[in-house]
Amino acid sequence: MWKPDRSLNKPLYQQIADHLEQRISLGELPSGSLLPAERKLSEQLGVNRSTVVQAYEELRASGLIESMKGSGTRVSPRKWGKTSRRTPNWNRYVEGGILQPSLPFMRRIREGLQSGETVINLAYGELAAELCPNDTITSLIRNEPFDQPLGYGDPQGYVPLRTALTSFLHEHRSIQATNQSILITSGSQQSLYLITQGLLSPGDAIAIENPSYCYSLPMFQSAGIRLFGMAVDEHGVIPDDILNLYTQHRIRMVFLNPNYHNPTGTVLSPERRIAILRICEQLGIPIVEDDPFSLTALDEEVPPPLKMLDQNGTVLYIGSLSKIAASGLRIGWMVAPHSVIQRLADARQQMDFGLSIFPQWIAAHFLASPELSPHLIQLRDQLRFRRDVMAQALQRQLADEVSFELPKGGLNLWCRINRPVNDYALLENGLKHGVAFVPGSVYGSESGFVRFTYARPSVHEIEPGIAQFAMALRKTME
Amino acid sequence: MWKPDRSLNKPLYQQIADHLEQRISLGELPSGSLLPAERKLSEQLGVNRSTVVQAYEELRASGLIESMKGSGTRVSPRKWGKTSRRTPNWNRYVEGGILQPSLPFMRRIREGLQSGETVINLAYGELAAELCPNDTITSLIRNEPFDQPLGYGDPQGYVPLRTALTSFLHEHRSIQATNQSILITSGSQQSLYLITQGLLSPGDAIAIENPSYCYSLPMFQSAGIRLFGMAVDEHGVIPDDILNLYTQHRIRMVFLNPNYHNPTGTVLSPERRIAILRICEQLGIPIVEDDPFSLTALDEEVPPPLKMLDQNGTVLYIGSLSKIAASGLRIGWMVAPHSVIQRLADARQQMDFGLSIFPQWIAAHFLASPELSPHLIQLRDQLRFRRDVMAQALQRQLADEVSFELPKGGLNLWCRINRPVNDYALLENGLKHGVAFVPGSVYGSESGFVRFTYARPSVHEIEPGIAQFAMALRKTME
Ligand SMILES: Cc1ncc(COP(=O)(O)O)c(C=O)c1O
Ligand SMILES: Cc1ncc(COP(=O)(O)O)c(C=O)c1O
Repeated sequence: MWKPDRSLNKPLYQQIADHLEQRISLGELPSGSLLPAERKLSEQLGVNRSTVVQAYEELRASGLIESMKGSGTRVSPRKWGKTSRRTPNWNRYVEGGILQPSLPFMRRIREGLQSGETVINLAYGELAAELCPNDTITSLIRNEPFDQPLGYGDPQGYVPLRTALTSFLHEHRSIQATNQSILITSGSQQSLYLITQGLLSPGDAIAIENPSYCYSLPMFQSAGIRLFGMAVDEHGVIPDDILNLYTQHRIRMVFLNPNYHNPTGTVLSPERRIAILRICEQLGIPIVEDDPFSLTALDEEVPPPLKMLDQNGTVLYIGSLSKIAASGLRIGWMVAPHSVIQRLADARQQMDFGLSIFPQWIAAHFLASPELSPHLIQLRDQLRFRRDVMAQALQRQLADEVSFELPKGGLNLWCRINRPVNDYALLENGLKHGVAFVPGSVYGSESGFVRFTYARPSVHEIEPGIAQFAMALRKTME
Repeated sequence: MWKPDRSLNKPLYQQIADHLEQRISLGELPSGSLLPAERKLSEQLGVNRSTVVQAYEELRASGLIESMKGSGTRVSPRKWGKTSRRTPNWNRYVEGGILQPSLPFMRRIREGLQSGETVINLAYGELAAELCPNDTITSLIRNEPFDQPLGYGDPQGYVPLRTALTSFLHEHRSIQATNQSILITSGSQQSLYLITQGLLSPGDAIAIENPSYCYSLPMFQSAGIRLFGMAVDEHGVIPDDILNLYTQHRIRMVFLNPNYHNPTGTVLSPERRIAILRICEQLGIPIVEDDPFSLTALDEEVPPPLKMLDQNGTVLYIGSLSKIAASGLRIGWMVAPHSVIQRLADARQQMDFGLSIFPQWIAAHFLASPELSPHLIQLRDQLRFRRDVMAQALQRQLADEVSFELPKGGLNLWCRINRPVNDYALLENGLKHGVAFVPGSVYGSESGFVRFTYARPSVHEIEPGIAQFAMALRKTME
């Protein structure tokens, strides 16, 4: 975000006025568009409110903006002195559209983290820079000769990456796949999006865990899909609940995140995996197995994937490099019957014409690299250490106020607050105290839960992050 | 695509049977799914039909597949000997979904090009390998130190790339943009998709050129948008037609491809640019200016972009590296008012969580590289040469049968066939004679037009490609 530069000779208010004038004249702030309230802008820019007041004064004087009691400050619609020119009513366009905006809580967290203040990030479920295999990737970029054609690629994805994945999936997840049954996607996110947009129709009902990462995704609403939560206990989804939901709502798909479930950390038991697969086979409904975390086991290994047990093409299996290597690669995959892969590969062409060759080329080399196994071992060690640091911090600071299970893998710790609390106030207080986390209600849980990630902050931020959370919690409880 | 290996000891039919058995047992060909007809498979695999017959025989004998008179050969639904297990009816899922499949002609072309036969590609509007700046890209990958964070990136795109684009757009298109008004997308395609899904609502009407690249994009149907064609002459869209369409259909946006229009090659005249901008300003409707070709001027330069003339934020400007550097980079951009950029950046998170850092990092360096200008000059020289080779070949081979204008830029030559012809038969004959091209009706024109690209084949394929087309045309006319 732009900020005024205190080292310049030009007064701050003048810098702000000039900056806004430039944005207005470029059409970035079209006529009629609302400017931030003075107090808000002064916070964003880190200046006194009176400085913003003076900048707005200046712009008003030149006729570029207008303020009206009760309706804020707007770019003047008559700024060009020609009444014949109008700007599209962008508000109406921006508020339309099929794609739904992110949840307010998620936008607030992003805003808090981008504000320029130091906010410890216990919110984003991704790896800290020091957990990513930067050196391996940097050196393979430098040393592997890049000699790939630069045209539009294969709609299913770069063939050597699909080949590398068949070995990877076989070795690490006992999944048998072939090149033809793999689609490379922009993370698991794009796989989920393609399923909702390419295989389901508006009005369709699906079953998801309750709570679930899926509740945080407006993509289901965008596709007009009805979500029904499945009952869950400490061993994951209760299989019979699927039958209930089928009888009541004719669910057309079951979405599962069986390993170190986001947000609760639960692992679906082996018996239930078999039971769920049998039930779905009998009902003829597909299972989406979203499995980004299985290689982040911190204690014992996870049970075999449903896809391994699936001999009938009932399971759409989804994986990703985001949680085990780098989310900025944007490399994920889906393993599914060929007709499904073909349909979704074709549909994806409309959205983006497929993935860039470069991250696919890097991922193919990374998966085949001798550095992969040592990286995974080291990653687990570091995640285990971080998890323990966070658990100890919670014990030390909030033993009486919160309760949680130690997660056995994944990047997140799911934490219950023992007394009733207002999620909204808690998040605002958290941001004010310099810490971001995700209120559980984002994932569809009742209020009073919080998801912390121990993977994203740097190690030495975990303890202070929890301390700041403790202050925010006490403040909220006052 | 898998093919049997003639160098192996194993008989071809056995290789085919084993391959199919493997795909069936992995669930890639789920029970009940249809196998290709014997003749078709034998063509695809390049074997005799009797070999496929024998392979199917083998699979039938082991109960894996069943053939029924009139309904073809299917994977046996009882293959596991347990009637309780069923496969999801994938057909119903695959035929559902909001995202529409590609047009049949486009799928047929892709299939023809992937068939394994040598087919000269005059169909894909992209650069041949030898026109891409491979050396520059390879050397920057090798020599620029990669030191970027590997986490989820900024939703609007990598900041240094946006900064490089502001200079690039200023220098090459006289467009003033700032970081905040730029969104990096996966080619222009994703910009178009985001506009249809993020700003328009089902039932909305828009105006597009007739013919237009947009007609080839099922994304408009997927979003439930009604397309109205604008009348076009040799100077592009006739401005008054916009007013007509507005009065009749309340169009909510105008899509233009003003420079070397795909497929016709037309350049919108400077006077009309101004007139269209004024009309749209008065009506308060946004213009989408899709401008991938402006830097491929072969003769004189193109007029200033509408975005340069736009001082009110009426124009959404879209560009791409696909047609001037490499389509496999998947780097495009949109310049628009900040509120629009923010809305679409947020919406895109749902689809794919943003672009990979790697192509963005490469593009930022490429745009700032001293090699960019020499590359663009060389590209134009080579495209001009190729265009002339194609035009001469058409003159030599088909002077009486076709007519065309010499395109002044872009990658395509738009060709009218002087006598009535059946598009479908022409394409099939083309593929049979070893040449692919795009029938004009894909872009909404009446039948009897063809789009050839001179950019995609290698130089020495252009003349034979046209010769093969001439044979196919004569065959079709017979
Ligand atoms: C369960 C689950 N699925 C999918 C995703 C999407 O991640 P990506 O697209 O980076 O693979 C996430 C990210 O938080 C997740 O937690
Ligand atoms: C007019 C026009 N717009 C957009 C595109 C999409 O190209 P890309 O997404 O590679 O930039 C094309 C490609 O053919 C095109 O011709």
